[in-house]
Amino acid sequence: MREKYNNILNSRLAQNKSYIEKELKKILSDIAAPKPLKEVMLYAVLNGGKRIRPFIISEVSSLYQVGPSIYKYPCMAIEMAHCFSLIYDDLPCMDDDDLRRGKPSVHVKFDEANALLGGASLLTYAYNILASKNFSIEDKKKIALINIFSNAIGHKGMLAGQFLDLEAEKLSKKPTIKKFNNIQEKKTGLLLAFCCYAGGFIGNASKKELEVLYEFGLMLGRIFQITDDILDKEGNQKLLGKKVNKDDEQNKATLIKIKGLDFTKNELSKFSEQAKNKLLLLKKDTKVLSYIIDYLCSRTS
Amino acid sequence: MREKYNNILNSRLAQNKSYIEKELKKILSDIAAPKPLKEVMLYAVLNGGKRIRPFIISEVSSLYQVGPSIYKYPCMAIEMAHCFSLIYDDLPCMDDDDLRRGKPSVHVKFDEANALLGGASLLTYAYNILASKNFSIEDKKKIALINIFSNAIGHKGMLAGQFLDLEAEKLSKKPTIKKFNNIQEKKTGLLLAFCCYAGGFIGNASKKELEVLYEFGLMLGRIFQITDDILDKEGNQKLLGKKVNKDDEQNKATLIKIKGLDFTKNELSKFSEQAKNKLLLLKKDTKVLSYIIDYLCSRTS
Repeated sequence: MREKYNNILNSRLAQNKSYIEKELKKILSDIAAPKPLKEVMLYAVLNGGKRIRPFIISEVSSLYQVGPSIYKYPCMAIEMAHCFSLIYDDLPCMDDDDLRRGKPSVHVKFDEANALLGGASLLTYAYNILASKNFSIEDKKKIALINIFSNAIGHKGMLAGQFLDLEAEKLSKKPTIKKFNNIQEKKTGLLLAFCCYAGGFIGNASKKELEVLYEFGLMLGRIFQITDDILDKEGNQKLLGKKVNKDDEQNKATLIKIKGLDFTKNELSKFSEQAKNKLLLLKKDTKVLSYIIDYLCSRTS
Repeated sequence: MREKYNNILNSRLAQNKSYIEKELKKILSDIAAPKPLKEVMLYAVLNGGKRIRPFIISEVSSLYQVGPSIYKYPCMAIEMAHCFSLIYDDLPCMDDDDLRRGKPSVHVKFDEANALLGGASLLTYAYNILASKNFSIEDKKKIALINIFSNAIGHKGMLAGQFLDLEAEKLSKKPTIKKFNNIQEKKTGLLLAFCCYAGGFIGNASKKELEVLYEFGLMLGRIFQITDDILDKEGNQKLLGKKVNKDDEQNKATLIKIKGLDFTKNELSKFSEQAKNKLLLLKKDTKVLSYIIDYLCSRTS
């Protein structure tokens, strides 16, 4: 049984990854950036990656009969914003990682200034993509999507999460569970919630469905973050493509540190169950979306 | 005569500065960011500044009978993007400036990571402001404005300009005039062109007028950059609020270095004349806009 869903998921994930990477490469190759800046942007975006965020958008969009000619826009925008965040996370003043997906991080391959400017260029271009004329949804919806996207990334979202995470590192005391969850939700959850929401939103999902999708996305965020922490503890450096045991080195707050490994693994099972139950509320064929939960729980990279 | 236009300009500039700073303070104080992140953002934005970009938007908007309840949105967005760029420019890996407007730069006051995250949060919030429901222009126009804004900032605009500028620093050879002008236009011109264009655009200016405004903005950019270079050479460190002679220290390409100080001052007069002639094409009362040219030429900070 497990074999079967693995096959279905892996095949769809691979198909979507190949499609989105082709689209990303095409759109980035066409930009009117100075050549070496374009090179930084292409390196940062086409440096591997599972493309899980675009995959989620595509799967949710498909539930609402939205095709790739439309969903590719939020897919590309979110992936560029994600790559921007990876560039920044890896910088010496942040997590100081020389490797990303087994290759030199952007600031190592180029330099810090180029990494910063390339990253910010990806972020601004993500907005161009959402505001693109070719993205054929109503203008009103485009504006709404830009707002939700900005909220997921900015001072209430991912950037706030990274800010709080670095702040927590400096403290000798572990954060409370409540504080910890707040950091994780901002850092990882809101972007995944955006993916789920965006897929439904461009497919004219009902308000109730959008709420369910958003909450489901937040749950995926928790699952993603917990497996990230477990991989840092128990993962294989080669498969991961980055150093393990960084969390301890950097005094990063993780659920494992606050509550122990057994508790953490239990939480993972609990959240997976909750996320699967959440999907049932949509009353649609959410098989593939539920496979994503299993995939995230069992990932090795 | 000079006294009189100085008075008119200074009074309007001061009035607009006070209005925009009040609005910026209000909108930033209300954001749901973690308190210390909000502090970084407020410090970066309310750290003085002439607010020349919002002033240009307000003056052009007024030509087309657009009031502050509308023009304040692009004004705030452009000022946040500008402050984002100043944070980045000052970083050790870029221009490495410890002082900005006579006060510690953001990365000195806080730290590099906080400066980066605060800067990026200002940039993402600028998009929220342009996509705000309260910004009462047509959705179609909002989308168009977001695109032009993104182009002015991103890989074709300001970020590209900074990228090329840093690249030129590394070379022993001075860039050609053509290359130099291209860098300056991207680095400074496109943002000022956005300001002029945006004011006309929200005021339903004709296509022809928008072209004139855009070109006028590019000319202001040249004037601005030339006076910046002259101030670095001949300016007063106290009035400037930052170190002088940085261009030489950093091997920055300036028109002065390529063509000498006399030629540069001549160019300034030539561009001022051209910019004033450009304004005449609008066939409107562009007195204050032409005062801006004189103001930029004679500024001491």
